[in-house]
Amino acid sequence: MTLLEVSHPAGLHTAKVLREHSKGRASVSNAEVEEHSPPRPHPNTINDDDYAVLSARNLLFDICNQNGGGHGGSAIGMAAIGVALYKYAMRYNPSNPEWFDRDRFVLSNGHAAMILYAFNHLVGYDDWTMEELKGYGSAKLDGFTTLCHAHPEIEVPGVEVTTGPLGQGVANAVGLAIASKNLAAKFNQPGYDIVQSRIFCTTGDGCLMEGVALEAVSLAGHLQLDNLVLIYDNNQITCDGPLDWINTEDVNNKMRACGWCVLEIDDGNHDVSRIVTALDFARSVKGKPVFINIRTVIGVGTGVAGTAKAHHGVFDKDSVTKSKIAAGVDPNATHQVSSRALSYFRERKAQGERLNAEWERLVQQYSKEHPDLYRTLQRRRAGNINDEIFKMIESMDSSTMQELATRESNGLIMEKLWPLCEALCGGGADLANSNKIYQSATDVFLPSHYGGRYIRYGIREHAMASISNGIAAYNHGTFIPITATFLMFYLYAAPGVRMGALSHLQALHFATHDSFAEGQNGPTHQPVEVDSLYRAMPNIVYFRPCDGEEVLAAWKAGLLATKRPTMVSLGRDPMGIIPGTSRQYALKGAYVLRENSEADITLASCGTCMHHVVTAADRLEAAGIRTRLVSAPSFDLFEEQSEEYKKSVFPTDGRPIVSVEEYVATTWARYVTGSIGMTTYGYSASGASNCTRFGLDAPAIEQKVQRYLKEMKGGSARQAGWKRLD
Amino acid sequence: MTLLEVSHPAGLHTAKVLREHSKGRASVSNAEVEEHSPPRPHPNTINDDDYAVLSARNLLFDICNQNGGGHGGSAIGMAAIGVALYKYAMRYNPSNPEWFDRDRFVLSNGHAAMILYAFNHLVGYDDWTMEELKGYGSAKLDGFTTLCHAHPEIEVPGVEVTTGPLGQGVANAVGLAIASKNLAAKFNQPGYDIVQSRIFCTTGDGCLMEGVALEAVSLAGHLQLDNLVLIYDNNQITCDGPLDWINTEDVNNKMRACGWCVLEIDDGNHDVSRIVTALDFARSVKGKPVFINIRTVIGVGTGVAGTAKAHHGVFDKDSVTKSKIAAGVDPNATHQVSSRALSYFRERKAQGERLNAEWERLVQQYSKEHPDLYRTLQRRRAGNINDEIFKMIESMDSSTMQELATRESNGLIMEKLWPLCEALCGGGADLANSNKIYQSATDVFLPSHYGGRYIRYGIREHAMASISNGIAAYNHGTFIPITATFLMFYLYAAPGVRMGALSHLQALHFATHDSFAEGQNGPTHQPVEVDSLYRAMPNIVYFRPCDGEEVLAAWKAGLLATKRPTMVSLGRDPMGIIPGTSRQYALKGAYVLRENSEADITLASCGTCMHHVVTAADRLEAAGIRTRLVSAPSFDLFEEQSEEYKKSVFPTDGRPIVSVEEYVATTWARYVTGSIGMTTYGYSASGASNCTRFGLDAPAIEQKVQRYLKEMKGGSARQAGWKRLD
Repeated sequence: MTLLEVSHPAGLHTAKVLREHSKGRASVSNAEVEEHSPPRPHPNTINDDDYAVLSARNLLFDICNQNGGGHGGSAIGMAAIGVALYKYAMRYNPSNPEWFDRDRFVLSNGHAAMILYAFNHLVGYDDWTMEELKGYGSAKLDGFTTLCHAHPEIEVPGVEVTTGPLGQGVANAVGLAIASKNLAAKFNQPGYDIVQSRIFCTTGDGCLMEGVALEAVSLAGHLQLDNLVLIYDNNQITCDGPLDWINTEDVNNKMRACGWCVLEIDDGNHDVSRIVTALDFARSVKGKPVFINIRTVIGVGTGVAGTAKAHHGVFDKDSVTKSKIAAGVDPNATHQVSSRALSYFRERKAQGERLNAEWERLVQQYSKEHPDLYRTLQRRRAGNINDEIFKMIESMDSSTMQELATRESNGLIMEKLWPLCEALCGGGADLANSNKIYQSATDVFLPSHYGGRYIRYGIREHAMASISNGIAAYNHGTFIPITATFLMFYLYAAPGVRMGALSHLQALHFATHDSFAEGQNGPTHQPVEVDSLYRAMPNIVYFRPCDGEEVLAAWKAGLLATKRPTMVSLGRDPMGIIPGTSRQYALKGAYVLRENSEADITLASCGTCMHHVVTAADRLEAAGIRTRLVSAPSFDLFEEQSEEYKKSVFPTDGRPIVSVEEYVATTWARYVTGSIGMTTYGYSASGASNCTRFGLDAPAIEQKVQRYLKEMKGGSARQAGWKRLD
Repeated sequence: MTLLEVSHPAGLHTAKVLREHSKGRASVSNAEVEEHSPPRPHPNTINDDDYAVLSARNLLFDICNQNGGGHGGSAIGMAAIGVALYKYAMRYNPSNPEWFDRDRFVLSNGHAAMILYAFNHLVGYDDWTMEELKGYGSAKLDGFTTLCHAHPEIEVPGVEVTTGPLGQGVANAVGLAIASKNLAAKFNQPGYDIVQSRIFCTTGDGCLMEGVALEAVSLAGHLQLDNLVLIYDNNQITCDGPLDWINTEDVNNKMRACGWCVLEIDDGNHDVSRIVTALDFARSVKGKPVFINIRTVIGVGTGVAGTAKAHHGVFDKDSVTKSKIAAGVDPNATHQVSSRALSYFRERKAQGERLNAEWERLVQQYSKEHPDLYRTLQRRRAGNINDEIFKMIESMDSSTMQELATRESNGLIMEKLWPLCEALCGGGADLANSNKIYQSATDVFLPSHYGGRYIRYGIREHAMASISNGIAAYNHGTFIPITATFLMFYLYAAPGVRMGALSHLQALHFATHDSFAEGQNGPTHQPVEVDSLYRAMPNIVYFRPCDGEEVLAAWKAGLLATKRPTMVSLGRDPMGIIPGTSRQYALKGAYVLRENSEADITLASCGTCMHHVVTAADRLEAAGIRTRLVSAPSFDLFEEQSEEYKKSVFPTDGRPIVSVEEYVATTWARYVTGSIGMTTYGYSASGASNCTRFGLDAPAIEQKVQRYLKEMKGGSARQAGWKRLD
């Protein structure tokens, strides 16, 4: 048993397990074991695995060089890893990329995209023709049509998640593993392992330095996700130079300390069988995710092997020629895969179809023995939400939320919807009691109870968002991930939230303490600019309800938005229900709360601030200023309305329209003629004293508006240009 | 030697060192050693250290309870740690909080702010009177005046950095340690240890889960920062409940794997001497930062001890009464510190003054023996920049940057300024070759060469920004930290950048690849909304130059902005120099590039996009449309100009003004009548094809403007309201 160098403290025991397991590998994939184990040297030829590695590498050379370069070095170095995964370890069906119970592969080192594309071609995904591969790098000229994006994109068959920003894929993989564990716990029955999917994720040196990955790694160990294998392409080279310029930690012991089982392979450039044995062993590990540290050489076999120059660029002709000659193919031809290599890989297509068909038969059998579970499974697979949920939203009485902060109304609504919507899955980053999100003590996702849906993410906001993306990506609509923390800490989570928006993944993000009116924590906890990010971010709905009635609208919007995340921005302080708010109209993003065709002024606001604006409007009315009121919880939804509707809310007749919000005001400038807002950070003080300090309480609003009206002197406020009202 | 349980693998050796060092502790602080070591039990009284802990705790009870609660639990639990630090370990001068060579204390678990405030009072910081302490929690009523903010804020004497958002303080501490190492390497001479400052940082369970801290920890180990001590207040409780709900990793081994020396104290609630011995030992460790894992009980000695309820809230009267009786003080009186306790702590004030005076004498001596170094030191202490730098900026010829991308112009400028500006210190997150920032191979900050100023941050964007804050916080103006990565990855770094802005800390952030015109990496790498965040963020200058001439302005702006960070947003692709750009006018944030008093339209833009706009303007002119051009690299600087100047750039005469930028356009709406911009993510394609796809190349701009002018029919474009030009 020298194939695998196991440096686990329990080395002896481990080696034994390996030996036993190695023998039994045939049980996993009978078809390959004969030709694979043990590797027999043939004097005049190369064994099939080595030949496959060589062939994959030759194809990668061509992909990398075809359009003047790309991130080829790590792809070349990972060729044997790719063969081990695609030929031996993974359970998938190239003929049906969406097979529900497939193993999921995440290329967290997304810049190495070409390896994913090449193997998708080799094993026979329909979309991944050789012509398609020729698109790689053509993005530089015309990227409108190719599937070969520079980084893998989720919309493409055979790509599980969009990766590229380092560390995200590792967290996505943890999310996928959680999803699989949860479904298995919910649906598997004796004799019916309906959900067996395992998650394989590759990572380079980079991902493992990123905080988001480190957070996710810690949580995965804590949750004992033994269906997750993280394969470290340890090539010791980064963009700028050798890894030891920037990182000298003992990664194996770090992973062990995080509760992972660690395997180590000292040369992963060529020997497929070592890698396969490690992957087999990983399958036998219980109660721990598995980290396989595989030493490779970036750009192996080329002139730039083992250097930062191999990170991206083209490969030298000599090396490519030598490699092709070694495989016995024409060194001058490109994009050729020999029939020997092709039959070696394409066998997986037939096997995948067989596995998928077997699984479908099992599900059919299951439908008879467990009809109720089967129906639920089908609904989850289809991503359908029970209609009862929307009925519940319609029927809830917001007048019962009169005394509540919007975070509290939200908790109440969530408590009602949680049992009706089995797709809801997630939780908070250690502030659940402050976020007031619903958490059932008996429904926690735990190693002893993977059927639980409430996830304790710990103080890991960034990973929380990125793990949620993995949960959502498991299968469209099967899960609706929820997350929760303070709005301020969605700045920590922002790169994950963005990846979800970019990837069209549904999620509900509950961002509480969204105002400086939660003054006591001070400016470190008071967002005044975070909304600007989310209101600019494409394909996410930022929704800031002013009361419980509008929180109901936020839920409806969020549940209906199956192709994008929704962030619900919630207040800390009880503000009550504002007369006239409407869950129906709130879904339009902005609507007239108090109409007055003769109005001297329109005031527009949302969230906690709306309450001060209502009082200010009353004061203005008392002073003889006819005041119109607009509630605008979501610019994103408003932008989707007709021009006519938009004009009816924010007319362009020149009469002044003033927005009031305790944020930097520029997001409003497109609709209004003037804004009351923030230009600085907040202050550690009570909500009331902050509102006074920054001129955002009702008297200050009234005063500023009065002054503005005098300045405008009845002229066109639009013509005067947008003003900041000081 | 049973005081300290040392679980380091090299246990025997460690114990020996401990014993030796324990004896030698007198050399560090002669004054205390007699009364401290070894602890002698007195039958009828409490020893001084225990009494000090009790006294500190009693004061903390009063602070926590005085205004209805606060984050008291961890403060109470850390009382003995506080005594060990403030009485024994740290070198500081309460009479001169800004003493250049003081040890720095960072409370990364910033919610426990009251412990910092209480000890600042006990040891006699002038500002920290008992009256001041009574302000804690009054923030809930009126926070306008108290120094007792809910989280520590850097503006307050005796507070080194603003903390609260978890994990930030750990990274700040790493930055402070880098600063100290660098200054020591630069200025210390035989017999002249001018810079000895060491960094002490406390952390709770929370910080250690945050990615930013994990990144910083990894880098600190790599850089062998043995002047850094991280003290883990291991109370095993978080907001939501017991730590093992969310984290079960082996933190000690994790830290060891990251290159730290780990010490462990199994009961840190009471025994000051154990903690002092560990801190003494930490001083002897060479080549590794030190992690002291101290087991404490949150809210120790109260009714909620050891539970999440102790995290924040008030403490029960019974426990407080008992504790006061134990200390022999009136249980009904509050805010009383006995004279015994006060004299125990206040002795540190005299000692601090002595240490500071000794140091000043040493510096005086140094000025004679090393006059050149002394002058440089004084300039660095004063935070003065050599005038040569600004002369260089004035004199540089941007026409030599004709063929360069702005990232390249920036690299060129940086190369010239680096040797002239010794305060510049920092580097990139493994993309230096892409960022094109200047890096001298001989000027790298390394354990073997701490005098180097170029820092290889590794793939740790968030920590990079937060470490920079620590470097800047070492002493105002002594360092001007620089960071670099892609603009997209400043979303990873955003919480750190924000903390720098909130804390008035200078930094230069070089954000390259700031356009989707760097198309090949695809939408994962193409910011379309990140600018919205930074343009809304208070107290940071976001500066997006269109050519080398304006990059010079960005440098000038950034170097002059000593109380805020500057982000320079730079393009990947060579676009050349635009005729008429001006480094002087660019400092106004926006200026007229091509004037025409009869203009039919004004086009405004910045960055890479400006080049397409210039071409579009030429096309419009050729078509008979009189076109005015505005370059607007920085809204932040523009907002600081007079109303008159602003109107001269963006007139409100109703004539159309259209902004063009490959970002979501809403940040422009306050100035213009219409915008051409993005509403979606970008695409993996060449810059040219992306510009065409999204209608942002010159022909598309021309076409959209023509259509817009027709729609406006010569009427007031302002009156019509802001339009998105599709």
